[in-house]
Amino acid sequence: MIRVLLVHDACLLRLALAERLAREPDLEVFHAPWSQAHGRQRTVRPDLCVVDLDDESTYALTPLTELTGPSAHGRGCRVLVLATANRPGQLRRAAEADALGYVNKASQPERLITGIRQVAAGQRFVDDSLGFGFLKAAQMPLTQRELSVLSLAARGASVAEIAHSLHLSNGTVRNYMAAITRKTGARNRIDAIRISQGEGWV
Amino acid sequence: MIRVLLVHDACLLRLALAERLAREPDLEVFHAPWSQAHGRQRTVRPDLCVVDLDDESTYALTPLTELTGPSAHGRGCRVLVLATANRPGQLRRAAEADALGYVNKASQPERLITGIRQVAAGQRFVDDSLGFGFLKAAQMPLTQRELSVLSLAARGASVAEIAHSLHLSNGTVRNYMAAITRKTGARNRIDAIRISQGEGWV
Repeated sequence: MIRVLLVHDACLLRLALAERLAREPDLEVFHAPWSQAHGRQRTVRPDLCVVDLDDESTYALTPLTELTGPSAHGRGCRVLVLATANRPGQLRRAAEADALGYVNKASQPERLITGIRQVAAGQRFVDDSLGFGFLKAAQMPLTQRELSVLSLAARGASVAEIAHSLHLSNGTVRNYMAAITRKTGARNRIDAIRISQGEGWV
Repeated sequence: MIRVLLVHDACLLRLALAERLAREPDLEVFHAPWSQAHGRQRTVRPDLCVVDLDDESTYALTPLTELTGPSAHGRGCRVLVLATANRPGQLRRAAEADALGYVNKASQPERLITGIRQVAAGQRFVDDSLGFGFLKAAQMPLTQRELSVLSLAARGASVAEIAHSLHLSNGTVRNYMAAITRKTGARNRIDAIRISQGEGWV
């Protein structure tokens, strides 16, 4: 039996998908919202976690690396992410967190089941339809420092607050914001935040 | 038999939920992404549509009123929305579009099924757990004009562009933005956009 922990915030959809997966004779399915994912992972000890990357507001609090990284017991967990091709930032964060499987949310459930079996066996699984998303993820135009600036700005921090947080001068923060606006092809700072959020960078 | 059209953008979750609903003996279930919802509605002629309000980027293009309003054939369709309590803006838009049912996405599938039967019979159905969301929806602090300004700003328009679109002076737009920032309890313009988007107002 493959023990699967399904992580998704909307109970209604999570239960429906969990029931679908549980109909496979070789899958034993557990489920949790993001806020309880790490705790459930420790008690359930699944062979893999299937996680929805669109629940961003919550999983920012429970980073993906908490699931993939070494646990308190010295071992991490295989992770398969449900992703969309038009949010390259999500794909990149998942890749950086060493997720082993990538299934497009536009796929049929059968595709997810194939992916689960492959990842449980320790093999990489990537939906072909996510190819363009990975290409865009590789071409991400912003540096790590620019992303830090942008992410604080997106949360409503002023130039002075960003400068203070990152130990920079106000002028340097303004230069970063100008570079970010130019690189994202945005019209202004708010537009740069909108574009970057749409693609899942921040 | 109750004919249900389930509208949700992520195929994987839509199919899982559609399969769950189809196990009820009195439900005949069809499904579509938002981009095809209106067309499917005309061919399927469902007794009600069950729609997920979180697919906002797409349903902005296919407004909810297209589903609830009178169709080309002179009749609209009953709509049940899947919503979350912490996004009062969504609830308000659904109420304005005359949705008859409101089910919390944090509910169990059985709750949705009860709601479907009730809405199909022409009765209102509102999840108790959405009460606080409706309270917040009623207390929405922004005027229609302020919402228009905010929504253009959130899409990256400059003060001059907003002024031009809405036939206002630049000074008036700045006054609106200041009022919006104050009323939403935000630190600045970007923060006001972040707060308003989080609550589903724009």
